[in-house]
Amino acid sequence: MKRLVLGVQYDGSGWHGWQTQPSGETIQDVLEGALFQFCGVTVDTVCAGRTDAGVHGLEQIVHFDTNLARAPYSWVNGVNAFLPETIAIQWAKELVLDDGSQDNFHARFSARARTYHYVLSNSKIRSPMWSGRAGWVFRPIDVTRMREAVVYLLGEHDFSAFRASGCQAKTPVKQMYDIRIRQQGELIVFTLKASAFLHHMVRNIVGSLIFVGTGKREPSWIADVLASKDRSIAAPTFMPDGLYLAKIDYDEKWGLPQMASSDLPGFLSLL
Amino acid sequence: MKRLVLGVQYDGSGWHGWQTQPSGETIQDVLEGALFQFCGVTVDTVCAGRTDAGVHGLEQIVHFDTNLARAPYSWVNGVNAFLPETIAIQWAKELVLDDGSQDNFHARFSARARTYHYVLSNSKIRSPMWSGRAGWVFRPIDVTRMREAVVYLLGEHDFSAFRASGCQAKTPVKQMYDIRIRQQGELIVFTLKASAFLHHMVRNIVGSLIFVGTGKREPSWIADVLASKDRSIAAPTFMPDGLYLAKIDYDEKWGLPQMASSDLPGFLSLL
Repeated sequence: MKRLVLGVQYDGSGWHGWQTQPSGETIQDVLEGALFQFCGVTVDTVCAGRTDAGVHGLEQIVHFDTNLARAPYSWVNGVNAFLPETIAIQWAKELVLDDGSQDNFHARFSARARTYHYVLSNSKIRSPMWSGRAGWVFRPIDVTRMREAVVYLLGEHDFSAFRASGCQAKTPVKQMYDIRIRQQGELIVFTLKASAFLHHMVRNIVGSLIFVGTGKREPSWIADVLASKDRSIAAPTFMPDGLYLAKIDYDEKWGLPQMASSDLPGFLSLL
Repeated sequence: MKRLVLGVQYDGSGWHGWQTQPSGETIQDVLEGALFQFCGVTVDTVCAGRTDAGVHGLEQIVHFDTNLARAPYSWVNGVNAFLPETIAIQWAKELVLDDGSQDNFHARFSARARTYHYVLSNSKIRSPMWSGRAGWVFRPIDVTRMREAVVYLLGEHDFSAFRASGCQAKTPVKQMYDIRIRQQGELIVFTLKASAFLHHMVRNIVGSLIFVGTGKREPSWIADVLASKDRSIAAPTFMPDGLYLAKIDYDEKWGLPQMASSDLPGFLSLL
């Protein structure tokens, strides 16, 4: 038995999120369906971070166990042949599975940090070219005000104020390593890196930062929201369209062939 | 009676092209439906360049005649409220309609030049993030070879070799003003500007240039194809996903508030 690790990319706009559902219209359902067609046996996958409906994955990390011996390129091209245009495996890596050991690679539990991008189109008229790919705010946004506000979120905090009610995380305390806000033309890109994220945490933070950027709230309000630990005080959950699960950090010992940021596909490589 | 001119942007990937069809699943059908809801009367639109199924419009120019008096922003916001996410009017401009004059503005006949972009993803593994938004070639492409080849296409030529069989243009002779090929990371963007384009002309040229770029043909082969005037010699029509109608040139006297190239939305503004 080996543990196979995949880097999977998907445009989430047409899908009901990662996690399997009776509808079958999820990334996990479609990926496991393609793996079944390729392997001839049922496969149970585990992912690094479950994404919601409409959220994209630039490099979701997925693992499953198999007895099938195939070269990595054969896994990639073979399984991709059974996947729709909006989902594709980017790479595959075989790891040894030691049944007695606690130290097997695990897509979720071995992850040390997660990075998300939120892409926002800040234009007076909505742009169809960003439909499903970016959030949209028509009021002018002052990026400087938002950059002042994010300072309060860095470090270890109880992020309950930005946590969805159905969130299943064991603890609301997470370590926020970095938040960058970049602006290019009408685009604003938020990049957040943390030990882990609570359910809806990025979209709740982005929604609240937009309150600050448009002048509806002062930058210091973010500190008040965080301290309150009260979800009802932060802004509503912002739309999923602009959210991208970008990168999962693991120990180098696993030797995963993950993309460098500069290898990022599409418009994100241009930032 | 006034002549109203609109700048319309659309993501063509879910639509059956511009021109009205019994299915109703075209940009024209949906736009005229929204105009009907806003105006309360049926409106017949004329566009600058009919795009095929899957082809995008960054700034399609559309005109129609109306008695309705509304401010430009009211046309934009009012009609957009009846349009789906993937289609949106970007601006509106009212022009005088002189019934006796030959010199009325006409979206198609007043156009002096058209510019198209073709966006190509050149990566070993297909990228879902470019699904519907870019063509894909997995074989490595040498941009230098393609740049050598495009020189043969500049100037006035009979472009019959790159013309679809059903093309309704009066003449296959067109003036090619400019062809630029830009490369950034895994992206290659072709920008073609001509007096007008025959049906499938951009996709047939791009397909043939890819034959040159991947080494299947020599750069000078493009000159042979052009001289042959024989459609059966050029490469097959390349996929519509990466094609964007970008800009229509008109006389400045019309005062249309067209986007500058630097105002282009999304990833194209970053090039």
